[in-house]
Amino acid sequence: MNKLFEKLQPYLEKSMALQTARNLFDWDDQTAAPFEAADYTSKVIGILSDEYMKSLINDDVRKLLKKLQDEKEQEELDEKEKAIVKELAKIYEQLESVPPEEYRAFNELTSVSSRKWAKAKKDNRYEDYAPYLGKIIDYKKKFAGYRVKGDKKPYEVLLSDFEECFLIKELDEFFEQVKEEIIPLLKEVAKKADTIDKSYNYLNYDIDKQREFCKFLAGYVGFDFSRGVIAESEHPFTTNLHNHDVRITDRYMENNLESGMFSMIHESGHALYEMNIDDDLTQTLVGTGASMGMHESQSRFYENILGRSSDFWEPIYEKLVSTYPENLSNISLEHFIKGINKAAPSLIRTEADELSYCIHIIIRYEIEKMIFADEVTVDELPKVWNQKYQEYMGITPTTDTEGILQDVHWSFGEFGYFPSYAVGTAVASQLYACMKSKMPLEEYLKAGNLNPIKEFLRDSIHKHGAVKNTNQLLKDVCGEEFRAEYYINYLKEKYTKLYNL
Amino acid sequence: MNKLFEKLQPYLEKSMALQTARNLFDWDDQTAAPFEAADYTSKVIGILSDEYMKSLINDDVRKLLKKLQDEKEQEELDEKEKAIVKELAKIYEQLESVPPEEYRAFNELTSVSSRKWAKAKKDNRYEDYAPYLGKIIDYKKKFAGYRVKGDKKPYEVLLSDFEECFLIKELDEFFEQVKEEIIPLLKEVAKKADTIDKSYNYLNYDIDKQREFCKFLAGYVGFDFSRGVIAESEHPFTTNLHNHDVRITDRYMENNLESGMFSMIHESGHALYEMNIDDDLTQTLVGTGASMGMHESQSRFYENILGRSSDFWEPIYEKLVSTYPENLSNISLEHFIKGINKAAPSLIRTEADELSYCIHIIIRYEIEKMIFADEVTVDELPKVWNQKYQEYMGITPTTDTEGILQDVHWSFGEFGYFPSYAVGTAVASQLYACMKSKMPLEEYLKAGNLNPIKEFLRDSIHKHGAVKNTNQLLKDVCGEEFRAEYYINYLKEKYTKLYNL
Repeated sequence: MNKLFEKLQPYLEKSMALQTARNLFDWDDQTAAPFEAADYTSKVIGILSDEYMKSLINDDVRKLLKKLQDEKEQEELDEKEKAIVKELAKIYEQLESVPPEEYRAFNELTSVSSRKWAKAKKDNRYEDYAPYLGKIIDYKKKFAGYRVKGDKKPYEVLLSDFEECFLIKELDEFFEQVKEEIIPLLKEVAKKADTIDKSYNYLNYDIDKQREFCKFLAGYVGFDFSRGVIAESEHPFTTNLHNHDVRITDRYMENNLESGMFSMIHESGHALYEMNIDDDLTQTLVGTGASMGMHESQSRFYENILGRSSDFWEPIYEKLVSTYPENLSNISLEHFIKGINKAAPSLIRTEADELSYCIHIIIRYEIEKMIFADEVTVDELPKVWNQKYQEYMGITPTTDTEGILQDVHWSFGEFGYFPSYAVGTAVASQLYACMKSKMPLEEYLKAGNLNPIKEFLRDSIHKHGAVKNTNQLLKDVCGEEFRAEYYINYLKEKYTKLYNL
Repeated sequence: MNKLFEKLQPYLEKSMALQTARNLFDWDDQTAAPFEAADYTSKVIGILSDEYMKSLINDDVRKLLKKLQDEKEQEELDEKEKAIVKELAKIYEQLESVPPEEYRAFNELTSVSSRKWAKAKKDNRYEDYAPYLGKIIDYKKKFAGYRVKGDKKPYEVLLSDFEECFLIKELDEFFEQVKEEIIPLLKEVAKKADTIDKSYNYLNYDIDKQREFCKFLAGYVGFDFSRGVIAESEHPFTTNLHNHDVRITDRYMENNLESGMFSMIHESGHALYEMNIDDDLTQTLVGTGASMGMHESQSRFYENILGRSSDFWEPIYEKLVSTYPENLSNISLEHFIKGINKAAPSLIRTEADELSYCIHIIIRYEIEKMIFADEVTVDELPKVWNQKYQEYMGITPTTDTEGILQDVHWSFGEFGYFPSYAVGTAVASQLYACMKSKMPLEEYLKAGNLNPIKEFLRDSIHKHGAVKNTNQLLKDVCGEEFRAEYYINYLKEKYTKLYNL
């Protein structure tokens, strides 16, 4: 190990331990903690967060970082050390530019505003939430302003926190192609809505049996129960303490078979990523996925590209039918596959199908871009939102609850996050095309042998953690950087066939 | 707040946050964490433990502590501040006297020896474990030697870590009385073993139903589910993040109805203590029970004194019968009460009944005393153990697994801990006598109204946390310090009646 880098280690290790503790508190809060605990526990978390900041942002680390960024020192670092130094520099860039008292005030604001958002969403009263959203936007603009360098736009500063390879130019290009090709396709599909029956999905499905079948699904795609656990929470999510302790949650609904199953496959995709990161990177700043987008590519690859294919279900559909013979014995595999892929313009992002999903993201992206270019006021947001839904989806929300109030992200100040969902989805399609050319994917699925798929993703993507970014990974695996065509072709081919267009 | 004390606050708060994180990791390890996690997570916990030490043991805190211990400063502190300073001084006394490298080596040893113990117990091979136990004893003697002051004996240093009011003189006095009165009683009871039938307890009891009934029991005695959670683990235990987040576990056995039920009432007793500590003491060094013994008094008060009484079951026995009609519809309340109180000399402490329990403790106490007075070698321990069981219980273990190897405590270096169990049991009897004179306890129980009992314990004991010690609490509540007579009379009265002696 480089000697200068070695001096950094104790600081990094301490920060990772504190970060791991925060992850555990977060997991516990959403899966186990009693209702009344929050006020006292949040004080504890506050102190641990301060300690985390102090462990990284201090004079010693600052000096070491500066030295390590020096060109001559860089030459002596290995790839992993370089990546860690780069990550650390990113943290400094994010945190040091903002005055601590403003950062604290902002955190207090988001803690209030997320509660205000929940209430406003419940009451369908955007006007109660708008003042808080306004303040959050003001802070985010200010913070982005501190960080803007060169000819970057403020919104790009926020985008880069989630996905460094996709700024406005790349996203505009990507989304224009999607709009041009997918919006007309979605409108065609909408006309043929009646050709696919999905009523079986909304019958009564015993929760205990769902729990058991979903656990089977997780294991089926490769979730390692000796290194991971499954729990339940209001919204499914994945977190981890390290690569030997990866945790996912699911939520089961009695009158919706799909919901729990595909959430489980989705979270398992995230989990496989974290479980397969090299031990060498564990508990380092790069011992996690390459980016939000790259992470999402793995969850969506498993959930949609594999999980909604006929090949995937061929070996296991009988097991599902025998779990619920009363509901499914008359539903053929073909019928089921059509049902789980049924698409239509929709209002709610989190319930959207594969075809319309990206349109939801584009609407949010365009609005965020407007916000940070000062082209829209907070009061105008519901109107702009509804107009875009009408224009792209052909439907208009009748309430703000199913419109602008639906997502939690902005109430936490998470602007620039949404595009990663779309990037991930598209990356998954590109990987799929590339994998099909390299292995008999179809055969593996039909044989119920998902192991070679897991191994391929482990060796080409997962094990590298955040040492490489999205485009570097794509280039290494597929021989080229991101290209939207794979995604568009995937959707066109799939839905043209499904709806006989 | 005293100005000098105020300066101490940030250090104390940081240490409490780190301690809370460690508690959460410990809870998680026993209830949720996947099997393979341990090696990586223990590194994280190691770093957090080091930080905990550093947050308390440092020059700034040392100077503040010294000043705060000054007589003049003490006068300006309130009761709570004084108690916190006293606790802090205790931590310094415990940790500062031992050279850090020895302390670290000892911790490494116990981590190995607890695994060696588990294996030796499984294989019934004391000789494989003895060398490790020997090293642990050597360390404990050395550490106690560093800490001995005045005419205290080394073993007393260890005892005082768990219960400051009960050193060798007090324990000898207490245990002599128990031996004199209870050993003959136990032998009488043993002769009439056949008069009580308990076979119903070992029929098949559905685990899901046990889970549900035990949850009901916890709520029945006052467990507040908005401030606490119940989970499952191999050994039932109680822990807490703070007084608004108290956690208990239970373990259910298909062929033993009692086990899960009385563990649940026991842990609920611990939980009520922690839940009822004043908010003012939360997340301070005294925001926990007064001592191990005092804590055990609360769990055993609920488990044995209330939980094994006819009055307690009168309002709820029908509910239990209707949960398991196939097993219990022919078992009368009287039959059931006799069954749950059946006593006999026994070999295994954790499965012992109320009458023989204390004898198990006395054996361990006498052996620990011999160890630290250099009156017995490690190799001689199994022989001494077996002789004492023969002498006091009238039975001899046929294997070391059910003899000297049965308890985990020594493998962690926990010497001086066992007596707290007995002290707690006896304190519970004293409280019981005093409460009966102050409230219509019997009526409350028969009416299924346990609230006044909880409130009494809250106001007289729980809310004070560790601000007062065991004898101070007893004096305030009962008007006198600890007296063993209450315990002995309680047992004699109960078992004479139960067995018609």
